[in-house]
Amino acid sequence: MRTSEEYKEDLYKMKPNVYVRGKKVGRNSPELGGGIYTLSHTFDLVDHPNFKDLLTARSHISGKKINRFTHVNQTAEDLMKKQEMTRKICRLVGGCIQRCMGCDAINGLSIATYAADIAHGTDYHKRFLEYLKEFQERDLVAACAQTDVKGDRSRRPHQQDDPDMYVRVVEKRSDGIVVRGAKNCITMAAVADEIIVVPTRAMTENDRDYSVAFAIPADTEGVKIIARTTRLRAPEELKMPQSGVGDDENMIIFDDVFVPWDRVFLCGENREATLAAHLFALFHRHSYTGCKPATTDVITGFGALIADYNGVYEKHNVREKLVELAATAELVYAAGIASAIHGTKTPAGTYMPNEVYANIGRRHAGLNFYKELEILAELAGGLPAALPFAEDFLSPETGPLIRKYIKRRSDIPAEDVYRCLYGISNILCSSFGGVYAVAGVHGGGSPVMEDIAIWRSYDFEKKKDIAKYLVGISRDLPGD
Amino acid sequence: MRTSEEYKEDLYKMKPNVYVRGKKVGRNSPELGGGIYTLSHTFDLVDHPNFKDLLTARSHISGKKINRFTHVNQTAEDLMKKQEMTRKICRLVGGCIQRCMGCDAINGLSIATYAADIAHGTDYHKRFLEYLKEFQERDLVAACAQTDVKGDRSRRPHQQDDPDMYVRVVEKRSDGIVVRGAKNCITMAAVADEIIVVPTRAMTENDRDYSVAFAIPADTEGVKIIARTTRLRAPEELKMPQSGVGDDENMIIFDDVFVPWDRVFLCGENREATLAAHLFALFHRHSYTGCKPATTDVITGFGALIADYNGVYEKHNVREKLVELAATAELVYAAGIASAIHGTKTPAGTYMPNEVYANIGRRHAGLNFYKELEILAELAGGLPAALPFAEDFLSPETGPLIRKYIKRRSDIPAEDVYRCLYGISNILCSSFGGVYAVAGVHGGGSPVMEDIAIWRSYDFEKKKDIAKYLVGISRDLPGD
Amino acid sequence: MRTSEEYKEDLYKMKPNVYVRGKKVGRNSPELGGGIYTLSHTFDLVDHPNFKDLLTARSHISGKKINRFTHVNQTAEDLMKKQEMTRKICRLVGGCIQRCMGCDAINGLSIATYAADIAHGTDYHKRFLEYLKEFQERDLVAACAQTDVKGDRSRRPHQQDDPDMYVRVVEKRSDGIVVRGAKNCITMAAVADEIIVVPTRAMTENDRDYSVAFAIPADTEGVKIIARTTRLRAPEELKMPQSGVGDDENMIIFDDVFVPWDRVFLCGENREATLAAHLFALFHRHSYTGCKPATTDVITGFGALIADYNGVYEKHNVREKLVELAATAELVYAAGIASAIHGTKTPAGTYMPNEVYANIGRRHAGLNFYKELEILAELAGGLPAALPFAEDFLSPETGPLIRKYIKRRSDIPAEDVYRCLYGISNILCSSFGGVYAVAGVHGGGSPVMEDIAIWRSYDFEKKKDIAKYLVGISRDLPGD
Amino acid sequence: MRTSEEYKEDLYKMKPNVYVRGKKVGRNSPELGGGIYTLSHTFDLVDHPNFKDLLTARSHISGKKINRFTHVNQTAEDLMKKQEMTRKICRLVGGCIQRCMGCDAINGLSIATYAADIAHGTDYHKRFLEYLKEFQERDLVAACAQTDVKGDRSRRPHQQDDPDMYVRVVEKRSDGIVVRGAKNCITMAAVADEIIVVPTRAMTENDRDYSVAFAIPADTEGVKIIARTTRLRAPEELKMPQSGVGDDENMIIFDDVFVPWDRVFLCGENREATLAAHLFALFHRHSYTGCKPATTDVITGFGALIADYNGVYEKHNVREKLVELAATAELVYAAGIASAIHGTKTPAGTYMPNEVYANIGRRHAGLNFYKELEILAELAGGLPAALPFAEDFLSPETGPLIRKYIKRRSDIPAEDVYRCLYGISNILCSSFGGVYAVAGVHGGGSPVMEDIAIWRSYDFEKKKDIAKYLVGISRDLPGD
Repeated sequence: MRTSEEYKEDLYKMKPNVYVRGKKVGRNSPELGGGIYTLSHTFDLVDHPNFKDLLTARSHISGKKINRFTHVNQTAEDLMKKQEMTRKICRLVGGCIQRCMGCDAINGLSIATYAADIAHGTDYHKRFLEYLKEFQERDLVAACAQTDVKGDRSRRPHQQDDPDMYVRVVEKRSDGIVVRGAKNCITMAAVADEIIVVPTRAMTENDRDYSVAFAIPADTEGVKIIARTTRLRAPEELKMPQSGVGDDENMIIFDDVFVPWDRVFLCGENREATLAAHLFALFHRHSYTGCKPATTDVITGFGALIADYNGVYEKHNVREKLVELAATAELVYAAGIASAIHGTKTPAGTYMPNEVYANIGRRHAGLNFYKELEILAELAGGLPAALPFAEDFLSPETGPLIRKYIKRRSDIPAEDVYRCLYGISNILCSSFGGVYAVAGVHGGGSPVMEDIAIWRSYDFEKKKDIAKYLVGISRDLPGD
Repeated sequence: MRTSEEYKEDLYKMKPNVYVRGKKVGRNSPELGGGIYTLSHTFDLVDHPNFKDLLTARSHISGKKINRFTHVNQTAEDLMKKQEMTRKICRLVGGCIQRCMGCDAINGLSIATYAADIAHGTDYHKRFLEYLKEFQERDLVAACAQTDVKGDRSRRPHQQDDPDMYVRVVEKRSDGIVVRGAKNCITMAAVADEIIVVPTRAMTENDRDYSVAFAIPADTEGVKIIARTTRLRAPEELKMPQSGVGDDENMIIFDDVFVPWDRVFLCGENREATLAAHLFALFHRHSYTGCKPATTDVITGFGALIADYNGVYEKHNVREKLVELAATAELVYAAGIASAIHGTKTPAGTYMPNEVYANIGRRHAGLNFYKELEILAELAGGLPAALPFAEDFLSPETGPLIRKYIKRRSDIPAEDVYRCLYGISNILCSSFGGVYAVAGVHGGGSPVMEDIAIWRSYDFEKKKDIAKYLVGISRDLPGD
Repeated sequence: MRTSEEYKEDLYKMKPNVYVRGKKVGRNSPELGGGIYTLSHTFDLVDHPNFKDLLTARSHISGKKINRFTHVNQTAEDLMKKQEMTRKICRLVGGCIQRCMGCDAINGLSIATYAADIAHGTDYHKRFLEYLKEFQERDLVAACAQTDVKGDRSRRPHQQDDPDMYVRVVEKRSDGIVVRGAKNCITMAAVADEIIVVPTRAMTENDRDYSVAFAIPADTEGVKIIARTTRLRAPEELKMPQSGVGDDENMIIFDDVFVPWDRVFLCGENREATLAAHLFALFHRHSYTGCKPATTDVITGFGALIADYNGVYEKHNVREKLVELAATAELVYAAGIASAIHGTKTPAGTYMPNEVYANIGRRHAGLNFYKELEILAELAGGLPAALPFAEDFLSPETGPLIRKYIKRRSDIPAEDVYRCLYGISNILCSSFGGVYAVAGVHGGGSPVMEDIAIWRSYDFEKKKDIAKYLVGISRDLPGD
Repeated sequence: MRTSEEYKEDLYKMKPNVYVRGKKVGRNSPELGGGIYTLSHTFDLVDHPNFKDLLTARSHISGKKINRFTHVNQTAEDLMKKQEMTRKICRLVGGCIQRCMGCDAINGLSIATYAADIAHGTDYHKRFLEYLKEFQERDLVAACAQTDVKGDRSRRPHQQDDPDMYVRVVEKRSDGIVVRGAKNCITMAAVADEIIVVPTRAMTENDRDYSVAFAIPADTEGVKIIARTTRLRAPEELKMPQSGVGDDENMIIFDDVFVPWDRVFLCGENREATLAAHLFALFHRHSYTGCKPATTDVITGFGALIADYNGVYEKHNVREKLVELAATAELVYAAGIASAIHGTKTPAGTYMPNEVYANIGRRHAGLNFYKELEILAELAGGLPAALPFAEDFLSPETGPLIRKYIKRRSDIPAEDVYRCLYGISNILCSSFGGVYAVAGVHGGGSPVMEDIAIWRSYDFEKKKDIAKYLVGISRDLPGD
């Protein structure tokens, strides 16, 4: 397993192909430091007594101890461990730990490549296992590029005026393929070692050129990463973990990129491409049953803390808001547990989460994110929007006056009150916080996508049978 | 195990002490038939291939096969089986199967009596095990009488003007105790073999006379059961399972009732009385994670069926409503699974559900019941409120006209449409349906009670630690 | 103006054509007493000092003082008076006063007939004014029959397999027309003097046979009224206004009914038929901004009263629920006021409510009805579902015990507590209450219908202009 | 009336006492440009044909034409005009126009000073009218400083450990008073001519030192304004009105500030101080019934526009979301209309909005703000969080690729799509947007404050009377 220093070294060696605010920058640009800081936790804590059992796993292919973010789940227990790891480590960065996408992608591809080989006599799964071995041994961080730019939303890939609106194969060569197109809303691609590409939707027979999955180093020739970066910042004097955190959301442009065959995992198999799209989403939604409760934990923590500092922690309306937050976090987490318990061992050996439970969990999280921000705003009052800047708090001229007037309970230092409000302001009143909220709705598929998944996978016919039985339309006892 | 015939025979032999609409009636009164019909399912299906694995269990005391409703849970698996049984059998009666209260009471008492003996050197647990043996062998049905009438809600039991506002011990004798008071909102007491009494709230040292738990036959001298009965009815010609269903909600008056010592499980131990109150609620809320999803299954079934008959099943707004129902059912069910998985093996041997998950599950169900009715009303349109009476539907003069005008899709018989709407009308526009909705909010403790339980048991301090870490108030890494 | 006695006398003289529970009954059947009791208030209070200014108006055609329920609104003031009257008188019957439909129908037809004459050179408006004169002088009560049975919901009237799925003209004769079809969900038709028929949806050129509006006495040959009746009942000893209240929801079958030309207001004009459908809905939704707040007033009253009796009236969670109810009532009422203030004087002279405000008001009411019931259930606790029957409360054997145990605050008689819970139980746990709730969603058009009306009438283009201006897509200053 | 140039000139002449990011800055600092840009609209449009009737009024004291933001409302019409003006002008800056606070303060003080004089024989009202004359003639912009820092929230002003936690009079001199304390969350104080101070809560007899109201120039000696500024920015090449907008939220420290008597409007009159606190809130909440619908108009506009560009404008789920937004805007607006229609002419001549309606309107807005952001996020998808920076969009290297891949419908230029998403990103993913959301909850008093106001002013006893009448506890007909 790598150390975070090794991870950074590897990053800094990459060819510059990241664009930020009109400039091409190296991975060592301060703009990208937030994502790197965040991801480093997944390397740094593998030996920490509180986290090591969660952050590591035993590889089912090599038998070696590996970072759990590179593990392909084999059991329900594995899924629950991943969920718990995700929740506990996300808390340390106040939200998304940014490493699950690659993990979810390899889990999905482990099944889809197997299915393709069975159906078509191909050898994708073997290629995939080779890649997986490397992925685990090199302890790689991968972005999963799924969401295409999509052009006219009412048309399928092959129906677009511009055929590049979905990533597609423009050339097949003896040594590999050439792909063109763009993916957007791809989190942390600017700080990943690798980019794993999977399709974004169901593909028909006419969409075979778009039925492609592969993995490439993030600085491969022809790849352009346009990054929108956000940071939470605080002056040195107010050193705090939250201030290291940052995010990059990227448009990845594939400007005729060559991919060698051993990195191609699907190419033309539209049904398995559909399956791969579906499976990445499924594993990713299960991951959300870990990270979203963590985000709620953070919001709950700040809400409880400011209420405490304000001296109103025991008030009825504070309690009911905090319980509301706890209920949201734990319902989502419970859905993840149920998804693991009712999961399935697939022929590929990979253990797959139950689809209904993974989707209702992610859906519930997505439907409640803005509500949670609202609760935090209610608990915190108006100050997060009006908090004096840190420079004024630290200034000798205005600082003492601000300390005097921000003081509440005599046993709580003014600086602790300020820090608490500072943290809340970062969540509620920063561009980072805003990005987070939008991602809370859409990341991993918005509630409307989960509605579709539930509609497709839930057995409503069985429910109709219950009604028919009860009013005598049918006499069959509904057993299930 | 008894048959339903034996259960009825036993009931009909009881002394009349049930009052309905101003009259004292025997257990064979048609007014009570609805509850008896409902409960009979728990006897009749023990050999049915679809249900036998769920409806029976192996007694941990006798090793015999017993009805699962008399079983004390020993493992997480047991809790999940109970939950699944509850969901599947409740569907057959369109809602509450009415037998879980007794089961939840014995589970709670199995722990509380053990705790009392440890603390006080008493022998309640031994008495309890004797009673449990009988309970399992005679395959008994018990009401659990918890909710006292409570008088002035701002005062504790011992502070009331009238000391009988909570059930209390008025005399201790060598052979037993005499109790006085009343419990209300006690479901199915009029059709139970036994009444198990547990306290309704936390008891202080001054409330020791009220710290009492016991079990008695439902027709014990001095017990008066005032029943509010409701039925779903349909004419013979429209034979349907739903029309057999009924409910009785009871005020049970203990007019100086003698209880022999071997049926007394707590008497004066205020802390364990508090525990017993708490534990019955906990097991009962876990049971709700089975029955409430069943109720939602029924509502979903009728909603989907009428949408289908109306020819709008695939419409976007229908789909989103049905998915909403499915999500509610499965989030509650998932909470029950998580409650089992994160449960605890107690020193008494009983396996106890996790409190947070049981409570968030029950809370979510309670917060959504009226919403579910609203969705059903939206899907069904106005006709459930305006459906011609069955007698008019069956009448030769008006029937043919009603059939002509109620017809929708050509492939669905008019009578099926009528039956479907009839069933929905029973849910939305009957006194039974109304009772059901109120019970959906309050049964097993209303959401506000679950808020209190969550507030007490959830570790909000750990959440504050996360916030403190993130903004540098504390440097401790929050591990949990 | 008639007295309620005269109204009843007129009713009782009608030919029996009402069917209840398989029997044809006269209007003096006790089954119909609830509706008659309710409607009688609109006659009895015309001289009452609190109500006379509201319940009467000055006819714009005759100049005479008339019952406001027969008035065609001429000013914004008129609309606000109607709204206030509706709210204040509805409270006295705990909900729907059941006389607004006829009033809303004549208001709608006053505009649609005028428009038809302008477009087609017909004389419908003249006929209508003659009818209106009679309507006002005879102080008539009319049901408005709008909702057709509709058959296959995915097809227009003329596309149905059975052409009678919407009421249609089957014959035109020199002296009048013959109509066939059925309307359902028609409130109070069984106790109305007249039935006014208007179309239920937009009509195309192919639906001209269905583009018909007319008025007939409710016992006209060929009319069959299938009534679903519900009552709130209490024993004589518990005399209370609520127990007089009842409802009838009807399927009206037009079995080849002859309508003379002077009672025909549209016949074949599909555009004005569409307008008539639309206008009745509009006036009716404005009426809902009066009656729905009244229903909320009743729910608020019972919620506040039981909280008071329980001694928890000042508790934070009680207060927030009561404020929530108040906010719902007053937002709906405010929408009615805004609808009047922003209304339009039409060429016909009739003053028409603003469509957006009438619709958002009705919509808000419809979206909150079940929520209001839920709040009442939360405030009242479980007893409304378990309240001993009145006969047991009044029985010498059980009554004293029930009184003892239902007692709360020492200054509130047990009977007052019982009465209050009895009233709440009537709302929450009766078939009448259930009918009411379904009507709360669907009466006057369900929220989904208001969505359509708002979508059609709200100027979203102007909103887009604001966005375009702000980001520089357009330079035009959005003025409106 | 001033021009915006004159307003700026006046500002730039002020003594520097504004602190931003650790530095004392002049009013011409670019940090303050956003607020100045925003406010300038209120000067620039007084002659614009679309706005002049709204933006000007006739002074009731001088008879001259004045800016409506300096007008004291005399009629219901005035209130409705103010509401309409606020809505229409707020749209031009995408939200808060930032000038209503001063207007609401003078309206509140016009009543409170009159009441004080009646009760105490003082001459505050005369002083106030002199000030008002100046206010109107000099066309002044005032911040209203109401919210004190409050220290320990469980204690009244006089009970605080540090007596300065609420602004108080520390010295009375012959020529005026000296005040000390701090107010926070004061919008736009850094760009106002004047600061008007009113109390923040009900004052008891012991809080007389805190019962003070006055007006001073914003750069008065001893006043320190700590500003938290936020801006929406876009490069020159993307010129757009939205990019001019900005906000400053301020902590105002009164470090022993002298106020001459002619600027003191209350000093020691605790009851009228309470009234002044209450009345500013009341007028301000009425103003919110204008500005909040404007904010919703903007959100609706962007939501509709992006749906249009995405080609999904007519989809059912888009329509229902847009209608939901429209309903929120118009219910709040309707409440403002009802508040005007049911307002009161006070003895001071000022026309006062109805309290219940102003509060339910503001409450509804506050309860829905995050919901509206959520809807916008749902409509816009994930791109607002991942939109390439403007510099990358404009860069010759990446710009053409971004244009290619952001393109949707062939008839919409890529730049228009980018601009639309840019505007949405500003709302959802900027610190300005976050400040806005918190202000949407708390500005003018959060929903919990409106709950209190409604609880206090709504006649719940009358509602109880309805319940009592219906179940026969009382026989009085509830007339109102």
